[in-house]
Formats: sequence, C-alpha cells, structure tokens
Amino acid sequence: MIGIDVGGANLKVVDEKGVVLHYCPLWLHAPLKDLLLGHREASGGEAAVVMSGELADCFSRKMEGISFIVDQVRSVFPDALFYGNDGVFHDQAHPSLAAANWLASADLLRTRYPGGLLVDMGSTTTDIVPLSGFDRLRGLTDLDRLQKGYLIYTGLLRTPVAAMVNRVLLKNISTPVSTEFFAQSADAHLVLGHISSDDYTCDTPDRKGRDVLSACRRLARVVCSDLEEIGMDGAYEVAQSFWEEQKNRIRQGVIAAGGDLENGEKNPLVYAGTGSRLLLRQWGGIDLAGVLGDFADALPAYAVREVALRDRIF
Amino acid sequence: MIGIDVGGANLKVVDEKGVVLHYCPLWLHAPLKDLLLGHREASGGEAAVVMSGELADCFSRKMEGISFIVDQVRSVFPDALFYGNDGVFHDQAHPSLAAANWLASADLLRTRYPGGLLVDMGSTTTDIVPLSGFDRLRGLTDLDRLQKGYLIYTGLLRTPVAAMVNRVLLKNISTPVSTEFFAQSADAHLVLGHISSDDYTCDTPDRKGRDVLSACRRLARVVCSDLEEIGMDGAYEVAQSFWEEQKNRIRQGVIAAGGDLENGEKNPLVYAGTGSRLLLRQWGGIDLAGVLGDFADALPAYAVREVALRDRIF
Repeated sequence: MIGIDVGGANLKVVDEKGVVLHYCPLWLHAPLKDLLLGHREASGGEAAVVMSGELADCFSRKMEGISFIVDQVRSVFPDALFYGNDGVFHDQAHPSLAAANWLASADLLRTRYPGGLLVDMGSTTTDIVPLSGFDRLRGLTDLDRLQKGYLIYTGLLRTPVAAMVNRVLLKNISTPVSTEFFAQSADAHLVLGHISSDDYTCDTPDRKGRDVLSACRRLARVVCSDLEEIGMDGAYEVAQSFWEEQKNRIRQGVIAAGGDLENGEKNPLVYAGTGSRLLLRQWGGIDLAGVLGDFADALPAYAVREVALRDRIF
Repeated sequence: MIGIDVGGANLKVVDEKGVVLHYCPLWLHAPLKDLLLGHREASGGEAAVVMSGELADCFSRKMEGISFIVDQVRSVFPDALFYGNDGVFHDQAHPSLAAANWLASADLLRTRYPGGLLVDMGSTTTDIVPLSGFDRLRGLTDLDRLQKGYLIYTGLLRTPVAAMVNRVLLKNISTPVSTEFFAQSADAHLVLGHISSDDYTCDTPDRKGRDVLSACRRLARVVCSDLEEIGMDGAYEVAQSFWEEQKNRIRQGVIAAGGDLENGEKNPLVYAGTGSRLLLRQWGGIDLAGVLGDFADALPAYAVREVALRDRIF
C-alpha cells in the first residue's frame, strides 16, 4: 500500500520504504497522473489518499478540484480510497475530501500523543492541530481552521516575502517593501542557513538560481534595490525581518490553539514537516523526525497510509 | 515628439493627441520593441523616455535592465533621450535612469503647483511627490523613496491582496488570509465598483475572467473558500478589508510626505494616475484628469514629453 498527499504545489508518495516528493504545481498543469504512474508497482494496487490541491486556482471551485484529483488518482489506482474531513475513507469525489490531510495526521497521532499539539510546517502552510478531542476536529474546513489559528498560511519555501512583512529593518531604518513576488521564504531560509540549495525544491520567483547569491539578489529587490545597493548584510536583514514575522505568526497560532511555549511537558509541541527542526530550536518539544525519520516530512501521506493499515480498509 | 514610460508591467506612449497603454510585462519577455515600432510614425523621430521597468526580475541588476530598455528603445528611436533622476536627459544607459519617471512628473508640475503634493496612483505603485524643493528630490532612489514614504508599493490593479492584508473581516470575524497570489487589487476594486472590467488591463491571477463573478471567486479563495462558502457578501468583505488597508497605507505616505488631509487649500493634494478619482473622493484636492484629461493617467510619459519640449532638448 502507498499513501498519497496531493497538495497544490507538491505531490508526496509514501510506501513502507520511504517518501518521494514531486514538485507538482497543479495550477501550472503539472502532470499529476504521469507522476503517479511511477508509483504503481510499489502500491500493490492499494492507495490511501489525502489532498489539499483542490484549492489551486486552476479550479473554479473545490469540488471541481476534488473531482479532477480523484479522477487522476483512480485512473492509475482504480481502487484508491480517499480520506475525508469526516475522518472516513471515500471511494469517490465528495466535498469532505477538501483539505483533510491534516486530519489524517491527527487521526494517527491522537493515541500516541494525547494532549499534544501537532505543528506541521511544510513548504507552503503550517498546520497546528490539537491532538486531544478528535471529534472537535472533524468537519473543520480551511476557513474554520484559518479563523481558529489552526491553519497558518506560511511555510518554509513558498511564502512571498511581501505577504509576511510590510516593512523590514535595514540598518535600523524601517523600510516598506515592494509587493511584487520578488522573493519567498526559501530565499530567506537559504540566506539564514536554515535550508540548503537542495532543500529549495520549488521554483524560484525569478526562475534564476537556488544559490545564496541569487537569493540575496531576490531579497534585495524586495526593497527595490540591487544587491550592490544594500549589500549581503542588507539582504540578510530582509531575510531576518521575514523570519521574525513568520515565527511570530506561527507562535500566535500555537498560542491560539492552546499550546504552551513555556512549559510544554504535559502537553508537548509535536513537530513535523520540513520546518520542524527550525521550530524545535525555537520552542522545544518532540521532533517527529526523530521518531519517524523522513516520514515526518510527509506526515499526512504517511499518516493516511498508517490509518488505512490500522483500519484495514483494503 | 512622443513621450514614453517603460514600466515593468506597462508601456505608456504619449503624443500630442493622446495616450496609448500597452500591457507589457517585461519579466514575461513582452515584445517591447515590437510595441514601440507601432509609434514610429507619430514620433517624428523624437522620443523622450522615462523608465521604471529596470527593476523587473528578468534582470540581474538595474543596470542590466536600463541597458536593455535603452537598447530596445534606441533600436526603434535612434535619437531617443532618457530622463534621469538627476533631472537631466541622457543619450545612453546610465545608472541615474533607474526609476526617474516620478521626477519627470515633478519637473513638469513644480511650477504649476508649487507647494502641492502629487499623489499618482497607478496600476502597481503610488508615487507621492512634494512639488516644492525640486532639488531635494534629485538623486532619490526607489529605496530612498520607500523609506521616506514617497513610494507606496500599492496600486489600483496589480497588488496581491495578501501583500496588503494579513487578515480580513468576515461577518465581524477577523480571518487570516492565504498568502498565495489568489487575488489582486483589480479584483477588489472591480467588486467594489471602483473600476470596470475594461479598466482591468492586466492579467488575472488565475487567468480566468475579468468579470465580477470571477473576481469574487478569486477573493473567496483568499480565505481558502469557495464563493459558495462565503457568498458574494463575503467576497465583498474581503475586497473592503483590502481597500481599507490600501487607503490607510496611501494616507500614511501622504502624511509622511507632509500632506495635509484636513486642510489642503494652501498645499493641495494633486492627483494623477488611474486611481486619482478614487483618492479625490476620499480626501479632496485637485484631479489632474480635470486639467489634462487622459494624459493624467500616464503622467510621467506626458511629463517627460512636456519637459523635453520646454527644455528644447531636440
């Protein structure tokens, strides 16, 4: 059996051996079906699926996206089953399939870390999920989760810098930013040494390099400058301003969801996603990477497979 | 003689008869030269040029962009002259040519409205320019202008909603937004009735329609929702939250630049750009559209031509 997570930008496939990540931007008509074909052998015909890619704006509404994704997956895996935000597997397109990936993670972890707070920071978003009270999580939409602070729309790679900060500090001068899509979180985290060029798995805003110098040029442009105008130090300051605000947003979400940043022994923060190491360093807690290895970077894909095995749905 | 303003997204050409606007996104390798060829006859061989497109991220640095634009223009108009942020015309690529379009406007208007404050709201940015003390304006870079509040990076059409607001009010519930490029200012202003579909001259974020319904779908997606989830009222609320913040940013810039929103008779606010009507309704002042007609929507292109005529540079 394989677990599949069809996001808007990334496709993640998990089998018992490990994780495969495909950059697969649906709004650019990435070849979802072709990418899935490569996993047919490993699946043994069994695929448990979650999704969040239905929000991509190539679809007029979520149900159109759900139907598209279900059709693509079933054309490769005819018996695939899809986990819904009702906590149940479905064999066809249904509104409950929208953005239930985080719930699969909770469904797996709720017995392992009762009372914990899952913080899963991916490339694009950060899911914050209280692992107690699973019934209260069922049925939550993305809108509900935004309003509760459970969905913080910021991630390690794909967040536009200008969507996180209105101003940055340059030599202690508060400096408003350009609102163009000049740089993104991957640029900031690369420059800050939080990720490597190999971790930079999405497109760059200017289609130029994934190296530090190219990232610095992008960060300089955020304040309408050449790198020569503000220097590497200036680019670093833009990155640092971004990260301070990003951290702040995630912290606010953790607190809104009842997380205790000071004394988390009773109700630990449980980190997953490619941003887990970064957050662990800030606030401490449990890094699922230490428990699950690489699976922690694709937690929903791993979790939907585990839940499917647990519930013997095939 | 013609006046040319080469922006990153728009090319504007002015002759004595009127204005032609071309959507010309340089970062998508729009055919600048071909578009200019259509204006050869009207030019009589004389072209006065300003630019801001050198910041587009297809160029590694501004000088590369300046050289590209100068080359393209001169291949069509060999005798073209380029206005710099030193207030002087140049016949070849030079660092001072970066983003001097707003200064050409000031150079024209400083004698007509001494003591006034120019507020030129275009598709992408809003330039705020004190018309007294022209010498103090010379040499200002975009970075300087950001820090002084003279360059507010928000406009009538192209500002991503998520770059302006972190949260919107939905039925009085403060709701964080997605940071994807799902909707832009043109969607908000279309839904609010501030612009028509014909005024929506740039690409849509999802490459779908420029009608109100399509814009509402885009605005709904900003809160991770189908239009059916939040309704047209919800989409309107997203648009309204955006506009409140956009207005607020411009107001802060006007105040930072010494503008008087309460009592502007002595030092009037002088509006230009496609957003001028909208701002006039807010704060009162002088709408250049009433004086210059359509030329006011392409003020730098108009101004550089007028300054060239005034200074008899050809």
